[in-house]
Amino acid sequence: MKLTVLGCYAATPRTFTNPTSQVLEINNEVFLIDCGEGTQVELRRHKIKFGKIKHVFISHLHGDHFYGLIGLISTFMLLNRKTELHIYGPKGIKEIVLLQLKYANSWTGYPLYFHELSSTGPQVILNTRKVTVETIPLKHRIYANGYLFREKPKPRKLLMEEVEKYNIDVAYYKGIKKGKDAVLEDGRIIPNVELTEDPEPPESYAFCSDTSYTPSLAEQLENVTVLYHESTFLEEHAYLAAPTGHSTAREAAAIARAAKVSHLVLGHYSTRYESIEAFKKEANEVFDSVHLADDGKVLHFE
Amino acid sequence: MKLTVLGCYAATPRTFTNPTSQVLEINNEVFLIDCGEGTQVELRRHKIKFGKIKHVFISHLHGDHFYGLIGLISTFMLLNRKTELHIYGPKGIKEIVLLQLKYANSWTGYPLYFHELSSTGPQVILNTRKVTVETIPLKHRIYANGYLFREKPKPRKLLMEEVEKYNIDVAYYKGIKKGKDAVLEDGRIIPNVELTEDPEPPESYAFCSDTSYTPSLAEQLENVTVLYHESTFLEEHAYLAAPTGHSTAREAAAIARAAKVSHLVLGHYSTRYESIEAFKKEANEVFDSVHLADDGKVLHFE
Repeated sequence: MKLTVLGCYAATPRTFTNPTSQVLEINNEVFLIDCGEGTQVELRRHKIKFGKIKHVFISHLHGDHFYGLIGLISTFMLLNRKTELHIYGPKGIKEIVLLQLKYANSWTGYPLYFHELSSTGPQVILNTRKVTVETIPLKHRIYANGYLFREKPKPRKLLMEEVEKYNIDVAYYKGIKKGKDAVLEDGRIIPNVELTEDPEPPESYAFCSDTSYTPSLAEQLENVTVLYHESTFLEEHAYLAAPTGHSTAREAAAIARAAKVSHLVLGHYSTRYESIEAFKKEANEVFDSVHLADDGKVLHFE
Repeated sequence: MKLTVLGCYAATPRTFTNPTSQVLEINNEVFLIDCGEGTQVELRRHKIKFGKIKHVFISHLHGDHFYGLIGLISTFMLLNRKTELHIYGPKGIKEIVLLQLKYANSWTGYPLYFHELSSTGPQVILNTRKVTVETIPLKHRIYANGYLFREKPKPRKLLMEEVEKYNIDVAYYKGIKKGKDAVLEDGRIIPNVELTEDPEPPESYAFCSDTSYTPSLAEQLENVTVLYHESTFLEEHAYLAAPTGHSTAREAAAIARAAKVSHLVLGHYSTRYESIEAFKKEANEVFDSVHLADDGKVLHFE
């Protein structure tokens, strides 16, 4: 699982900080999560091929999370993209994009699908062969969702030494990896447990931004591998967090601990702070494995 | 007159090229012309104070000329701007901006005025104490206007030696600069021509992008000081220019020559060309004073 942070600062793009956008690579699928102004340039800078992006998830309709979307859609059009593109986001996103395409008298030469969300409970919105994606309803000033990406269970791992010992034909491998027993030519049955071992457990990534501190989130986030949770503020500015629908680093860590996640990634820092190290320090008082997102940072989780 | 080119490349923003946006400072007024994605970051990079920008002129509703506008408006909001902001652009721009503010449930704390254009003839759209701005109807794939900024005639220059010789009180200076004669205490009349000399002639700046080659433009552009005219293509790609509503460098120069402007600035280059020097060379075959716009370039004209 690989996370490329294109931008992770709150509010306005600045000379050296980008608004929210990240690319998640999980089980060989690529997902773009949020798309602040300038995202297309950051994608180029990181040499992420535009054609690989087929699904874009927008958390909410504040500008720092989606003002780069219309430019990305237009650029794909100018580059003669043919691959379909799916946009997931709050109700309204389709109207905003189509209005701008209408006034430009420009229509995409590729299929553009909108999946507008309005549910207040979690729902599975994408189910591929390799990954499922479900919404994480968040509490913010406007309707907002996080997204939970889960790898599908992986096939069992063949114990090649055993498989070869019984001279099993390669045509049966797929079935054995799915858990089937093997039937030899002489009729003997070799139980699957002799031929395979457990695969790596499926990994999962939860993106939660923007949100006020919501302890009930922990239930849906239980045991996820990596939780990205916004931490706009430090505790010293906790009085600003709740009224603006944001969280502190300590609150993000409290969610991580309650949900027993493996790793916490912090981001969406207010630009009032000179350094982001204090966010890690504060979160570490509550939770061990804390990573700081930063613009251009690539995080690998195995 | 000072022109800061924030971006001058056609089509999509890239790692090292920005879409169209420029800041014109003329007669102590500051105008933002077009506002492609990333403009707010370029304004910061050039340390152009946001508060100085009170008028934004959008040529047309293709993304590379206005996708940065909504972000700029939002950032002004987040920074608690109080000064009014005027947006001039094609009909539709108000609907696009307000739709996005509505879904963000965010409204500007500063007065935001839209001046939507639909006229197909030139019209004066701004008339301050120091400058007038009129539209330049352009021929492009969608409704588009250039903008012509003209300094108001400046006051006559006092010949201080003469003024002091007659012991004229400072209270009369303003009137004399406007062209009045002086009446001395003994009743003598000193004709204005003895006390003043002609001021600098008013300067003017015409922004023409995007447009196909339109010879009739020369009439409205006659004798302007500086003409910015798009040159998306070189002559070798002239066959692409007309159908896409664009011009070549040679065509831009032909307009400059026919209009007898003092200086031509080229820009809106297609990113297909490795170097922009060829644009100057081609235009120079037709017109002498050719300047190449480039991202980050500041041009002074006296």
